Amino acid sequence: MDRIGFVGLGIMGRPMVKNLLAAGFPVTVWNRSRPGIDECVAAGAQEAESPQAVAADADVLITIVTDSPDVEQVVLGGGESPPAAIEGLAQGSVLIDMSTISPSVTRHISDVLAAKGVAMLDAPVSGGDAGAIAGTLSIMVGGDADIVARCQPILEVMGKTITHVGPVGAGQTVKLCNQVAIAGALTGVCEALTLAQNSDVDPAKMLDAISAGAAGSWQMSNLGPRMVDRDFAPGFMVKLLQKDLRLALGAGGEVGQPLPVTALVNQLFHHLEAGGAGDEGTQALVRVVETLGMTEVRRRA
Amino acid sequence: MDRIGFVGLGIMGRPMVKNLLAAGFPVTVWNRSRPGIDECVAAGAQEAESPQAVAADADVLITIVTDSPDVEQVVLGGGESPPAAIEGLAQGSVLIDMSTISPSVTRHISDVLAAKGVAMLDAPVSGGDAGAIAGTLSIMVGGDADIVARCQPILEVMGKTITHVGPVGAGQTVKLCNQVAIAGALTGVCEALTLAQNSDVDPAKMLDAISAGAAGSWQMSNLGPRMVDRDFAPGFMVKLLQKDLRLALGAGGEVGQPLPVTALVNQLFHHLEAGGAGDEGTQALVRVVETLGMTEVRRRA
Repeated sequence: MDRIGFVGLGIMGRPMVKNLLAAGFPVTVWNRSRPGIDECVAAGAQEAESPQAVAADADVLITIVTDSPDVEQVVLGGGESPPAAIEGLAQGSVLIDMSTISPSVTRHISDVLAAKGVAMLDAPVSGGDAGAIAGTLSIMVGGDADIVARCQPILEVMGKTITHVGPVGAGQTVKLCNQVAIAGALTGVCEALTLAQNSDVDPAKMLDAISAGAAGSWQMSNLGPRMVDRDFAPGFMVKLLQKDLRLALGAGGEVGQPLPVTALVNQLFHHLEAGGAGDEGTQALVRVVETLGMTEVRRRA
Repeated sequence: MDRIGFVGLGIMGRPMVKNLLAAGFPVTVWNRSRPGIDECVAAGAQEAESPQAVAADADVLITIVTDSPDVEQVVLGGGESPPAAIEGLAQGSVLIDMSTISPSVTRHISDVLAAKGVAMLDAPVSGGDAGAIAGTLSIMVGGDADIVARCQPILEVMGKTITHVGPVGAGQTVKLCNQVAIAGALTGVCEALTLAQNSDVDPAKMLDAISAGAAGSWQMSNLGPRMVDRDFAPGFMVKLLQKDLRLALGAGGEVGQPLPVTALVNQLFHHLEAGGAGDEGTQALVRVVETLGMTEVRRRA
């Protein structure tokens, strides 16, 4: 059974580690901060003192951290980083990066690792912490088919839908496409709700009337009701979607693909970040559009 | 059984008349052009010589024409119109306008009719010609509850989901909200597909990977596959969605609600109209976004 190293013990990483332990994999962990480590050690993980040390003990190293520079620092090192994973990874081992980061940074890291005989998969996820806990994440995988096959038993512990979408970097591209599609659908819901509210039509009735038809979407069915009930608790945080939209716009820029609606939505979200609402759920976007129309979307009693 | 008058025998009106006839309602029809009349008369309808004559024979008059000026002309007359419905409608009769038009024009027509003792419902539909043929349209109804109740047996012949959303005009508002939500979701799909294509990722695989999750929508599931297969046959025509987006932007303007994404999508569609593609399906929007990125979205062999 593969020995697994795991770096990044946040809201996603911790339940993923527990599921790997429960499936019988030996797991060694490292994290920048303490609480995640303690929780995973209590669940049966070994602690190591650096990304290098985690990597040295692992056949497969999994990373799930925030952004491109975080993955670069953990894997390749530089600056005042602790000893990096690349100094520990043995020839024939595999890095699975499950963070959502830049496709081009992903390919750069993969190239550097390949020169040391280390393979890489990019395997970003969707499904949130609920999916991580239940082991039902959707995982979009980029990399060589034989490496994907080798890692399939590990991925299946964490996810229900595992889709191999292309070579290294393709997993990240597909994840960013996912966020781009979300941005459009989400904003359509916000504009529909504010038009109804400002036209003296019950926005909740409007949603009921249109959700099952051609205007319907996951965003409408799941976030529309929270908007009309003024429930802005995070399923997915504004600041994290903003990070992803910046990555998508950057990736579009690198390949010469303008994304005008994504860019506009990214701009609208700045209103929430400026107002200190970056930790709220993405459904708070409705507050930006209603501010434009000087109204407040609210279900009628 | 109510005697029904029906004005507007286009791709939607004709099957709706046939369903009313099949349900046993006597139907008198009028239309600007000949083929729709002949088809409905062959199915058992009576022909009348003007909107006035149709209205004079009807307890309930149904209109389904293209745009606000068309409804005004048929119902209120003016200019070189044939004698208008208002000259024939008896006190206690009802107008059901099933066109998609301006909410404020709807309220104006309703006010003029009310002064003559004629009630009005606005009852725009979604579901396309397939829904009209099957009698499974979604109907969004604005008007007084007692009038909605009175007309329910008629509406149920044409639609499966009949939602009373508020007073006169509210049906039109909800229909425009529907189109606004569609605009956002549709454009998100187009941007996601072009980002994948320009990043050398199979856009069809990308769709497969994300359609079941938080990025999913009716637009993605139904129009995404047509985009990657370069199938631009109309489900719903570009020029008709453009008419509806103009109505939505106009309605937003009247109530002071900016709709920035809807406005942007409306602008992008101008590219297709300028290129003579107004009769294609709305999925042709992908051609605008791919033109921006100098690529062409296409399923990999």
